[in-house]
Amino acid sequence: MHLYIAYKNYSSWSLRPWIALKVAGIDFDETVLPFYHSDALEKLGERYQIPAKVPVIEDQGLIIWDSLAMLEYLHEQYPEKKLWPDDLALRTLARSAAAEMHSSFSALRSQHPMNCRRQIKLQPSPEVQVELQRLAAIWAHFERANKPVGDFLCGHFTIVDAMYAPVMWRAVGYGLEISPSFEKWTQAMLALPSMQEWLAAAQAEESKWRIAQYDEVG
Amino acid sequence: MHLYIAYKNYSSWSLRPWIALKVAGIDFDETVLPFYHSDALEKLGERYQIPAKVPVIEDQGLIIWDSLAMLEYLHEQYPEKKLWPDDLALRTLARSAAAEMHSSFSALRSQHPMNCRRQIKLQPSPEVQVELQRLAAIWAHFERANKPVGDFLCGHFTIVDAMYAPVMWRAVGYGLEISPSFEKWTQAMLALPSMQEWLAAAQAEESKWRIAQYDEVG
Repeated sequence: MHLYIAYKNYSSWSLRPWIALKVAGIDFDETVLPFYHSDALEKLGERYQIPAKVPVIEDQGLIIWDSLAMLEYLHEQYPEKKLWPDDLALRTLARSAAAEMHSSFSALRSQHPMNCRRQIKLQPSPEVQVELQRLAAIWAHFERANKPVGDFLCGHFTIVDAMYAPVMWRAVGYGLEISPSFEKWTQAMLALPSMQEWLAAAQAEESKWRIAQYDEVG
Repeated sequence: MHLYIAYKNYSSWSLRPWIALKVAGIDFDETVLPFYHSDALEKLGERYQIPAKVPVIEDQGLIIWDSLAMLEYLHEQYPEKKLWPDDLALRTLARSAAAEMHSSFSALRSQHPMNCRRQIKLQPSPEVQVELQRLAAIWAHFERANKPVGDFLCGHFTIVDAMYAPVMWRAVGYGLEISPSFEKWTQAMLALPSMQEWLAAAQAEESKWRIAQYDEVG
């Protein structure tokens, strides 16, 4: 399995499959394609016969090009990793929340771009505040769910944690207050050795790959 | 199984699970919640203990609130309906395209809102033109895939067709030209008896539920 990703510092969608693969302990090779700084992504698109997007997984001769599709693929291929919980009610809740992340939260995504190595206090706009309230409601919904003990949304780490991992960085990076439940989850996510490995790599990118439009927000 | 949806004329995300349930022949009851014209959606949220969104499925005591999550749920619960294709390569391609629909095409979605009963010619903006090119590239990618004979993206009707069904109405309603392959698919989608049933219901809503902001686009 080969995972192509973009900048670890900035690419929120790249973090999702990467962290899931790492936490699940699935072997993979990775290549970072810094598409503002090289034409490697365009070349990949020529090989694929369709303009390439990152992240993308190549495996068994297949190309999987969307982060949620990748995570469903990993769930199918590695059922023993329990990337979705076994419990139907919990899995259904987790799939709803994960898919909502994929389709929604556009104000948060555009106004608070992921930037792992930066911390500033940025007052959320009214539209972002509505989205933060929705996040708090989703976290409260998981709190009420009947689930195993554990630090993550379904107890152990699953796809829904991977889907919201970039939101964790946005909250940390811009000082966004969501809810005590969300804060507790944030601490568990930051404590993952894989997440610290991602952060170290994001910091190491600073000397070679900076993108002004993201570094100047706020 | 009970499906709550919004206006058939305007609610693009409602169309997705509805058309999949109909084409698959899965029994369900439906309730239309016209949330600009009644407070029924708010009341549903009080019962759910989380602000309700439509579409939402209630089944086996579960609440599934996102269109893509619903479609994955239907695939799990009714594997014999083949809502995803059996073939791994085709299923992976279809999941990538379906998830991309869920996360992307924001210019098309905001500038050409679904409005089944209206047809006007609306010149696409440059941002929308980029997204139409992407749609053409995705349709061409399916054309090149090794798939069974049939009018739909994977041969027979699957989740990826349901996910893009609202895009079909946007193309028809605003005279958007995408590609001959997309046009052929559009004709197959319009020929579905269920799609004609949806259209008739959307037209019947006109006398009671009109939303000016969508009817005045262009």
